[in-house]
Amino acid sequence: MHSELNGITEIRVFSPATVSNVGSGFDIFGFALDEPGDEVILRITKQKGIRILKISGDNGLLPMDTARNTCTVALSSMMKKLNLNFGVEIEINKKMPFKSGLGSSAASAVAGVFALNTLLKNPVTLYELLPFALEGERISSGMTVHSDNVAPALFGGFVLVRSNDPVDIISIPLPKDFYCTILHPHIEIDTAHARSILPSSISLHDGIKQWANTAGLVAGLMKRDFALVKRSIEDNVAEPVRSKLIPGFEKVKEAVNYFNSFGFGISGSGPSMFALTRSKLDALKIGNIMKKSFAQANDGNIDSDIFISSINIYGPKILG
Amino acid sequence: MHSELNGITEIRVFSPATVSNVGSGFDIFGFALDEPGDEVILRITKQKGIRILKISGDNGLLPMDTARNTCTVALSSMMKKLNLNFGVEIEINKKMPFKSGLGSSAASAVAGVFALNTLLKNPVTLYELLPFALEGERISSGMTVHSDNVAPALFGGFVLVRSNDPVDIISIPLPKDFYCTILHPHIEIDTAHARSILPSSISLHDGIKQWANTAGLVAGLMKRDFALVKRSIEDNVAEPVRSKLIPGFEKVKEAVNYFNSFGFGISGSGPSMFALTRSKLDALKIGNIMKKSFAQANDGNIDSDIFISSINIYGPKILG
Repeated sequence: MHSELNGITEIRVFSPATVSNVGSGFDIFGFALDEPGDEVILRITKQKGIRILKISGDNGLLPMDTARNTCTVALSSMMKKLNLNFGVEIEINKKMPFKSGLGSSAASAVAGVFALNTLLKNPVTLYELLPFALEGERISSGMTVHSDNVAPALFGGFVLVRSNDPVDIISIPLPKDFYCTILHPHIEIDTAHARSILPSSISLHDGIKQWANTAGLVAGLMKRDFALVKRSIEDNVAEPVRSKLIPGFEKVKEAVNYFNSFGFGISGSGPSMFALTRSKLDALKIGNIMKKSFAQANDGNIDSDIFISSINIYGPKILG
Repeated sequence: MHSELNGITEIRVFSPATVSNVGSGFDIFGFALDEPGDEVILRITKQKGIRILKISGDNGLLPMDTARNTCTVALSSMMKKLNLNFGVEIEINKKMPFKSGLGSSAASAVAGVFALNTLLKNPVTLYELLPFALEGERISSGMTVHSDNVAPALFGGFVLVRSNDPVDIISIPLPKDFYCTILHPHIEIDTAHARSILPSSISLHDGIKQWANTAGLVAGLMKRDFALVKRSIEDNVAEPVRSKLIPGFEKVKEAVNYFNSFGFGISGSGPSMFALTRSKLDALKIGNIMKKSFAQANDGNIDSDIFISSINIYGPKILG
């Protein structure tokens, strides 16, 4: 039965965390990080069906039920579509926080389908994996699915999701000197809630500002004009509302603005915040500043983590 | 008094028509045409003050009153600011239609200040000329001024007006094979009216589509991805409302979409429509198609002109 596998029936892959929205690009921009991310081990089995053997790093919080787990729902959708007549078992090693605004469910979903596709010697393209991964994302978010985490996790780099239906993903070439610092406060924000508090309509005036800024952000990245990126990343739509869910947001933003970051905002629907810099050293420095200002703003009552990463331009990778 | 002029006291300049909005880029994008445009002759005079000697090509419709003429208001603003203690006289040769959506007032305003600046051997930069030209635009439109015609007329090429206050103009590099066909129906649309019929707010859903499209349009132009430009130029905000002011709009759009144009839309607030192609031959062909479909849609009751142009990448030019 496994003639297509050349005897290799197990694979371990890494799939990256992602920053979506990216300031002005509400629902349309996302980029992938080199770290953190998820690790998934996937094995082909004679026994049919999909099984989760183990989930670690989640403090027991992720569902072992394959009908509710992001990774297995994505796999199930793929196996049905490709008409695969064997089974798989997986182990998930959660190496990133979830409900953090870092695209945790997208990372798991992408890891699963990328692992299986690689084991099968790529019967479908990366682009064709997208709808399967989105099925996983759908189960986790329980609502209309956007590709702004799944697409960068799968393709790497900085992407524009120009349309979700039909899916139209555009890769935006990035400057090389592009580092990201993530501050992850130890609070949880429910994605559905963060969406429900957004206004259903906006003034034409705010709309014009926003589409001027998304155009400016793309131009800034492609022209390597970091000052333009900084001016264009300003979000007039989601940040004013969602930042209120993050205690200390304004203090952290203020602290970052004193430093030479070329962009700051909420990652996804939060609570994580990102700051963009042009060197690893600056990314480290700004990490200290963010952590300190967040702690001060909250009288030390909320812990936080810092992640420093370059931009992941390859998407998921094979670990073994 | 004219020591700064080296004896040269007269100049003749051309300033281009412009296409603003450009589909999804409502209020933020504009590009300049090689033709049509305005010609202005400007002379330094001993007699102080600003005089209009002659306006031709306007069927007597443009104001000879210097306090109401776009070109002289722009000049007046410049001369006051630069503290110039001589006079000027001008002749305007209108070589383009006005109230046509082609930035006629911007062309006149830019022509005036560019002419004077050139005669004076550029005491200020092109960028510094912008606010003077905007003063002229203001008198003509009688409302809040946008730079989306003045900026491309002055700088040439394709520009993003990221912000009007403070003014932030970004030049977007263009593919070379970029031709524009303009269909100018012989009807007039009042800019203020065309603005008054726009909704004051839009759904978040339509907003997201629009800022995905402006980002896509910039990416498409900079990546030379013409198919992406075509997908991204779609306007969900102004076109659905303003197209109703242009009889036959849908028929022309339909006809253009059968041809290999990579973009179609209303120029400015109309009634002119533009279609983008990659060769002069295609631009000519599509011009015939547009003219014919417009005539058919209106039973031949409304005349129209066609202009074919490459993109003007230099802005205004000195003719003599």
